[in-house]
This record gives sequence, C-alpha cells and structure tokens, in this order.
Amino acid sequence: MKITSLRTPCVLIDQRRVERNIDRMQQAAEAGGKRLRPHAKTHKSPDLALTQVARGAIGICCAKLGEAEVFADHRVSDIRLPYPINPVNADRVLALLDRTQLSFIVDDLEVARGWSRQMAAASRSVDVLVKIDVGFHRCGVDPETTDAAEFVVQVAEMPGLRLKGLLSHAGQAYGATSADAVEEIAVREAGILTEVRQRVGAMGVALEEISVGATPTARFSAALPGITELRPGNYIYYDRMQVALGAAEWDDCALTVLARVVSRPDPKRLILDSGSKTLTNDQVRGGALPGYGVVLQALDDSTPDERFVIERLSEEHATVRVLDGTTSTLVPGDLVRIIPNHACVVSNLMDEIWVVDGEEVADALRVAARGRIT
Amino acid sequence: MKITSLRTPCVLIDQRRVERNIDRMQQAAEAGGKRLRPHAKTHKSPDLALTQVARGAIGICCAKLGEAEVFADHRVSDIRLPYPINPVNADRVLALLDRTQLSFIVDDLEVARGWSRQMAAASRSVDVLVKIDVGFHRCGVDPETTDAAEFVVQVAEMPGLRLKGLLSHAGQAYGATSADAVEEIAVREAGILTEVRQRVGAMGVALEEISVGATPTARFSAALPGITELRPGNYIYYDRMQVALGAAEWDDCALTVLARVVSRPDPKRLILDSGSKTLTNDQVRGGALPGYGVVLQALDDSTPDERFVIERLSEEHATVRVLDGTTSTLVPGDLVRIIPNHACVVSNLMDEIWVVDGEEVADALRVAARGRIT
Repeated sequence: MKITSLRTPCVLIDQRRVERNIDRMQQAAEAGGKRLRPHAKTHKSPDLALTQVARGAIGICCAKLGEAEVFADHRVSDIRLPYPINPVNADRVLALLDRTQLSFIVDDLEVARGWSRQMAAASRSVDVLVKIDVGFHRCGVDPETTDAAEFVVQVAEMPGLRLKGLLSHAGQAYGATSADAVEEIAVREAGILTEVRQRVGAMGVALEEISVGATPTARFSAALPGITELRPGNYIYYDRMQVALGAAEWDDCALTVLARVVSRPDPKRLILDSGSKTLTNDQVRGGALPGYGVVLQALDDSTPDERFVIERLSEEHATVRVLDGTTSTLVPGDLVRIIPNHACVVSNLMDEIWVVDGEEVADALRVAARGRIT
Repeated sequence: MKITSLRTPCVLIDQRRVERNIDRMQQAAEAGGKRLRPHAKTHKSPDLALTQVARGAIGICCAKLGEAEVFADHRVSDIRLPYPINPVNADRVLALLDRTQLSFIVDDLEVARGWSRQMAAASRSVDVLVKIDVGFHRCGVDPETTDAAEFVVQVAEMPGLRLKGLLSHAGQAYGATSADAVEEIAVREAGILTEVRQRVGAMGVALEEISVGATPTARFSAALPGITELRPGNYIYYDRMQVALGAAEWDDCALTVLARVVSRPDPKRLILDSGSKTLTNDQVRGGALPGYGVVLQALDDSTPDERFVIERLSEEHATVRVLDGTTSTLVPGDLVRIIPNHACVVSNLMDEIWVVDGEEVADALRVAARGRIT
C-alpha cells in the first residue's frame, strides 16, 4: 500500500531513518565508553524499545510508572524512571520489581525516607539515583543552594534504598541558540556532577553511575569524562526542534505527519486537516521560530518548503500562510508531509502510526504506552 | 471512593456543574427561539451527548468523520460536521448516512462538485451547509472577496446535495479582550449571514438554517434575529479561557485536573505531575494571560490561588512558581486541583475521566471519541 491511500491526518515513521538514528547514537555512546539507555517517551513502543536493546542499549527510561508497566508487560527487563516517583505509588513499584529491574530518582529527603520505610516494610530494596539540578531548575537537588554531597550521603544510608549514583537532565539546552551553547551546557553539567561525585567520594561513599540525558547534549556528553550513561530519547525520530539546535539534519527526521488540504479559501491561505490534535501547540524556543512544524517540498523529500508557514492551529485545522510573492498549486484533496516541532508529543496523541519505507507502507505500529500519565 | 484515592494526574468532571451548564445553555437557546446543537469535541463522550439530546438539543456536531462514527455507534441520530470533509472520504460518508442524519459544510466549488458526483454515482443525497467566513479567516467563503450568494446558488443547483443553509464560526472571539468585543463579533456575524441569506433569497433560493457556533458568542447569538441554530461545545465544561472571555465564572468550570506535588526543590518552586501530556501547551490569547491553568485554593474550592503560576510544562512536569512574598506549605505527596486553559484538548488526552460529586467519585466515563482525528 502507498501512503497516498492512508486516511489523513496520520503519522509516518521512516524505518530506515529510525534504524540509522538508533545505530548512530549507539555508536556515539560506545565510542565514548558510555552506556546508552534511551528514553522511551518518544516512541512509547515496546517493539522499538526492544530494537534499541537488541542494538546495544542497556535498558530504557520511562517517565511514569504507567509507561513502565506497559514496557515490563512486553519483557523490557531494565527500566529507569528519571522522575521523582512518590511513595503513594509503592504498591505499583513493588509489583514492577517482581518483573523488571526498576530504578528511579529522589530529590527530597522526606520522599526518600518514605521509600525507605515502604521498602523496609516489604522487606525489599530498590535502586535509586539522586537527581542533581544542573541548571534547568525543574526537579533535583541544586548544588548552588543545597549541600548536594550531604544529601547524597544521607540517601546512601537509608535502608531499603540501593544508591546507584547521580542523574541529571540539562533541559535548558532546549533554549540554546547555537550548537556552541549546547556544548557549553553539556560541559558544565559534567563538571557539576563530577564535583558532587568527588565530594561524596571524600565522604566515603563511592558512586557507580553518573547518568545524563537529553538529545541535544548527547553527542557532546558522549565524549566527556566522568559520565557513565546517556539517556537521550528524541534521537530515534528527531524533529524541527532538534534541527534548530543543530542535533540533526532534516533528512534524519524519521517522523512526519501526512496531512491533506481540506480548504483553499484564498491564494495566500490553505487549510490542512492536521490541527493541534495532531501537531500539538508545542513551539520551538517559545515561538522564536514561528510555526507549528515545516511543510516539505514533496511527499518523497525532506526539504522544508519555505513558501509555507503553519501559522495557527485549531484542534482539527492547520491554517497555513503562503508567503507573499510565492504561489502554490495545492488544492483540496492534495497531500503534504510535515516535520513537527516536537515528535514526542505527537506520538502521545496517536494510538497507531505507520512504518514506511519511502512512500510504501510497511507496517502499522501500536503506540502501546500512549497516554500513560500516572 | 474519595478523589484523594485516585492515581494522579487525572481529570475530574463535576456532575452537578455539567448538568447545570447543559441546562442553562439549553434554556438560553430556547429563550431566543434557537435550536441547540452542541459540539461534542469538548467531551467526546456518547453518554454526555445523549444527555444533551435528552435535555433538548436537536443533535450534535463533530469535527471529523472518525468522531461521527463513534457517536453513530452509540445511537446519536443527528450529527453535523462543521468541517470541510473531502470527497476522498465518500465511502465513510455513505456508510454513516445509513445510520444517522449526517450533514457537513462546503466552502469550495470543486469539492462541492466532487460530493455531487459521488452522491449521484451512489444514487444518494446528503445535507450540506455553505460555510461563511465571518472574520476568523480559517475556512469558509469570504463575502469580502467572493460573491458568496452566487456560490450558495451554485451549490443549491448541484444534484445529490440538499442545501440546508449557512454556517459560520466566529473563532476570532477567542482573541477578544472584553465581553463587549465578543458581543460586537456576534452582532457582526449575524449581520453578515443575514445579508448573504437575503441576497440568496433574492436569487430565488430559500435557506432554512442559519447556524452559528462558539461558546463565547453563544449567549449573545441566542438573542439575535436571523439565527436558527447555536453550536457551542466548550460550555459543558468551561475553562480558564472562557472565564477570561466573560463567558463563565470560576464555579461554572466543571473540568479540573487533579495533580500531585512530586518535588519541592525550592520554597519558590514546586513541581506537579501534570505536564503537557495532561494540561497541553494551549495558551490563553497567545500567552497574554501567563500560565498553563490556575491552581485552586483547596480541593473543594473553585477559587484560583493567586500565589501560584504554572510557569512551564514539560511532558510530565508542571513547574509552578510561588510568587514573591507568599508562601505555601505544599510538600511532595500533596494534591491540588487545576482549572486548565482549554478543556477540550485536555479531554482529548484522556482515555477515561472521573465523574465526581464534590470530593466523592461517582463514576468513570470513557472518552470514547478521543483521538479520532481522521
């Protein structure tokens, strides 16, 4: 079947690009002597997770227990949650520990004590890492304001917790305006983690793992000393945001949206059937780069067609402006492909996506962990 | 069961508010002599659609055929698609016509001719309305640039199409900065439609229906002459956007997100487990009103707690700033309720939501038409 026969809008992933992206990141990690543990939030597919593991990944990451439950059901045997799981979920953690190697982060002593009590009560133990805030200012122990080493040592002493190491996410890299700025963030992250590890070591606690994760910083972190694990997720598909950050080229982008022109009310405006329920309202760098994705020049091409700006999304409509001085022959019924701003959130809207080889549909893929938010 | 026992994050809808919202809009429509045809995109629930019909609605609207298929499966017998459905979907339209009263819009003569050919080939006919662009500049025939009356008369003459009337959506009301501005938009919309109808009438074609739809304009349109049908959708739940537009009060908002504090890394910052996979990155008036929803003062209250700004969303985290000079005792494990910016898109992320009566969980409700984008 050709992609032109598919109901629209829909999501296509290019099989060869997915495999190439998986292999390149694996090679980069291995060349730097790091273990690769991809974040599965991008694809939410057990099939793709098992492919990543078969090609060398040590395991995967998920954000929430609900995702981990789906991947554990599909025999993914090592799952890390770089998320501050709350002890209110102890029943689910205990159930998961029976069927997969599970680890998660702590960044709060009361929460860590809660887990310690829960594990002790169940005569069990669980692997944890201390989350260090390396400048994104979301979760994590901030070494600027807190004695991070003292925090780590306290966690190391709690019964029921097996402290594996430190973990960070340099999410601020998504706001960077150059590849140099991204590299600087990666270097600073490694420096902060190394310093905490050394101070903890001086206090008599050896840390086995230093885990960092984000696709934009991954290629730099791969070559930095002191890091043991990389946790990028988006690299399996890439998207417009990653191209803007210099982390990928357009023809690395494996996920595209196939959309149809449904109205052409004006020579300067056309309407596609891919609204925010397909593309989401996620922006690139807070809207600094306008539009909700890029339209490609042809169905078999990866080059953005600069004539089109996806200017506004309603839930089921994309309003596309045809730039002044240019023309387009697109009429209702015609198809276009779009590289979205952010691939991970597009996956999360789909129950099923299409695996393609060029314009040929190879397979359907269930996004089995879609919508697992708890 | 109490809401405090639910896995978080999750979506709660308050049963009494839903019923009150349904009844008030029905009464407003009837008081103005209009038929009410709610847009089901907000709830995507056959149960709620059937409740709306039982309380007086003439039928429902859906955006896409995929949604209509779900509602038709659940015996909703009159479904209008205010969407420029493309003739490539003729097979699905013909199948739907066997089991529900279906109508949709046209705004392009070639598309209308395509439908006419498809219907003639199947010896069938379908109800259509001509979409008029009343200033939102998305779909529709724009009377400023096109002879709309001539367009309507041409559609009226096409075999296989039963022209029912005119339809519009004053989506520009969502950008209005005062209730007066919203009223002005509603008045202008009615004026444009009345003029087209009169010109069409002078050309010998009588139009039975004049259908307008948007929650912010609905209370004004209800009282305006010349309109026969109202198609608001959001009013069943309301949200922060509607309160900002003066269309609702906080205690009309029936949909809330129950979220849990998962990290409190700083006295000025707390992290909730409700990220963009729960709240979406939809903004109010392009971000003019900052934040991704409002945190409520207490689990049993509808008053926004002005100390908190939901400043940034990651997929699974909400980063909440505690405003300078204020404090909060919230710690990891604590629950909060949030009124989101935009209720419709939150529904679309959920497979199931909870019907509540105060803090008591009354029922689970499947969002059966979630994700039906084709």
